[in-house]
Amino acid sequence: MLDLAAIDRPLADLLARELEEVTIIFERQLASELSAVNGLCVHIEKYRGKMLRPTLVLLSGLAAGGDPCDGSALTGQHRAIAAVCEMIHMATLVHDDVLDEAEVRRRGATVNHLWGNESAVMLGDYLISNAFHLCSTVGDPAINLALGDVTNTLCEGELAQLHHRMDLGLDEPTYLEIIKRKTASLIGACCRLGAKLAGADDAVGDALHRAGIALGVAFQIQDDLLDLVGHEAEVGKTLGRDLDKGKLTLAVIHCLGAAGQDERGAALRLIERGDAVALREHLEQRGSIAYAAAAARRFVDEACAEFAILPPGTGRTLMEAMAESVISRRH
Amino acid sequence: MLDLAAIDRPLADLLARELEEVTIIFERQLASELSAVNGLCVHIEKYRGKMLRPTLVLLSGLAAGGDPCDGSALTGQHRAIAAVCEMIHMATLVHDDVLDEAEVRRRGATVNHLWGNESAVMLGDYLISNAFHLCSTVGDPAINLALGDVTNTLCEGELAQLHHRMDLGLDEPTYLEIIKRKTASLIGACCRLGAKLAGADDAVGDALHRAGIALGVAFQIQDDLLDLVGHEAEVGKTLGRDLDKGKLTLAVIHCLGAAGQDERGAALRLIERGDAVALREHLEQRGSIAYAAAAARRFVDEACAEFAILPPGTGRTLMEAMAESVISRRH
Repeated sequence: MLDLAAIDRPLADLLARELEEVTIIFERQLASELSAVNGLCVHIEKYRGKMLRPTLVLLSGLAAGGDPCDGSALTGQHRAIAAVCEMIHMATLVHDDVLDEAEVRRRGATVNHLWGNESAVMLGDYLISNAFHLCSTVGDPAINLALGDVTNTLCEGELAQLHHRMDLGLDEPTYLEIIKRKTASLIGACCRLGAKLAGADDAVGDALHRAGIALGVAFQIQDDLLDLVGHEAEVGKTLGRDLDKGKLTLAVIHCLGAAGQDERGAALRLIERGDAVALREHLEQRGSIAYAAAAARRFVDEACAEFAILPPGTGRTLMEAMAESVISRRH
Repeated sequence: MLDLAAIDRPLADLLARELEEVTIIFERQLASELSAVNGLCVHIEKYRGKMLRPTLVLLSGLAAGGDPCDGSALTGQHRAIAAVCEMIHMATLVHDDVLDEAEVRRRGATVNHLWGNESAVMLGDYLISNAFHLCSTVGDPAINLALGDVTNTLCEGELAQLHHRMDLGLDEPTYLEIIKRKTASLIGACCRLGAKLAGADDAVGDALHRAGIALGVAFQIQDDLLDLVGHEAEVGKTLGRDLDKGKLTLAVIHCLGAAGQDERGAALRLIERGDAVALREHLEQRGSIAYAAAAARRFVDEACAEFAILPPGTGRTLMEAMAESVISRRH
């Protein structure tokens, strides 16, 4: 996602070592007495990604922990909570891949064909359950409550998104509310908890929470843009899935909202036909791609403004670089 | 399930009032700021059942709390944990209804047709998340850890069951291990936590935990029997689903294991054809139905033997009656 080593080699190395420990905690937590369960857990590896959430927990702890930015502010709790947040995220990925019948009919078994819906559901449940179990081992009821609140919000976002599926009247505030819940709430919690566990005061925790929320919104807008205009080989997954699932994203919402009656009709026909190539061209001509990219830019700026509360130093510099990378990424 | 009022009217009334409060906590916990979420939660009502798990939390508290058995041993924590256990149970019901593609092809959209797989998955996740959130409000990290452990075990049971789907070589010990995990672990926790929250010592908590495990195993054996030999109108759901899902249950396992080569072949053909009526007759003739019923009986007796640690009185009498009702029920 981002070459942190180009900015600060020692800190990048430190983060890499910490992330390795997070991975060990992650895998140890999921190991089961039952070989059948371990056999299924192997499939989780295909969801391994950028480790954005654990990185933000650790980096928030480093950046808020004061000088020297040498890892002394990080605790075992950071690593456990980093693993918990990644586990919650992976559960949502696994469950997002469960298809409804319409999907099966329309696209054939493109996703999930390896092990079927039921295994995907149970595997996701196993991840959620282990996330809460691991969280409970930290022994701080306030963290359990905070993350329980986040997962409630996250599920509400997913349910609201399903409710608005095929809703061609979806407006921008509703879209932003949905992605704030389903994506940004967890990222906000990563930043806040990382800072809190490093002993930061409430003002810093609150600022990093707001920064994480803004970052999460920017991240999702960029994700949705890549689904529309990315290159499949770079993004690493089938594009146009949002449209297939009846999910309207910011560029499309802008295009439908800004258009006159005739233009709206033309865009709607492209959406209904599922013609991703023609729609992409249409959105570019109407300035809707640029509109969504500018919105993501604004949220990144918002996050960076919040980082001003952090002590100046490499920690803060890396947080800013992370924020930039959220919208400059191609996958 | 059971007419408790016929045994002890005042205690039955007390339980009914407590269960009403549990229901209020349950519904208040799930209420969302988003109307779209509340609209989907309405569907959960169709899963409302016997409230076996909350009843066991409360009754274990009453029975272990000593004389007078007047409800003074029950706390707000009992009611919260009772709601948590019901929420976990309902999440498994909602997720059990998610079909894989094979299922869709074979049976058509008999289950879940109202709102599709994806909504069912997210709704189940919302229930799990809220269960952990509500559990965290109790503020005792040990309870969070214990219930996290239970849900891990429960998911492992579900995953092992999926792993053994269509496994015609499934043996009795593996079957018992699976149902112990997927069904009995939660019921064991209900009994233990109910007693612990009423101030019972570890010996009583452990005994009630063992009793709950035995009860849960008996409950699942009976559930599986009803799927084979129940009356659809009484059971209230489509029968023969276990076979359709490739799930071998105790009577079938007994029949396949006890049979000679030829008989085994005959039984296998009935299973493969999905001929529930002929299979039922076959299992009855071979004594396999009686074998499974006797096993359930043994587990109920095991549970009742553990209840001997409880002070004699109406609480214990009601626990024994609950245990009996698990195998005498017709739905």
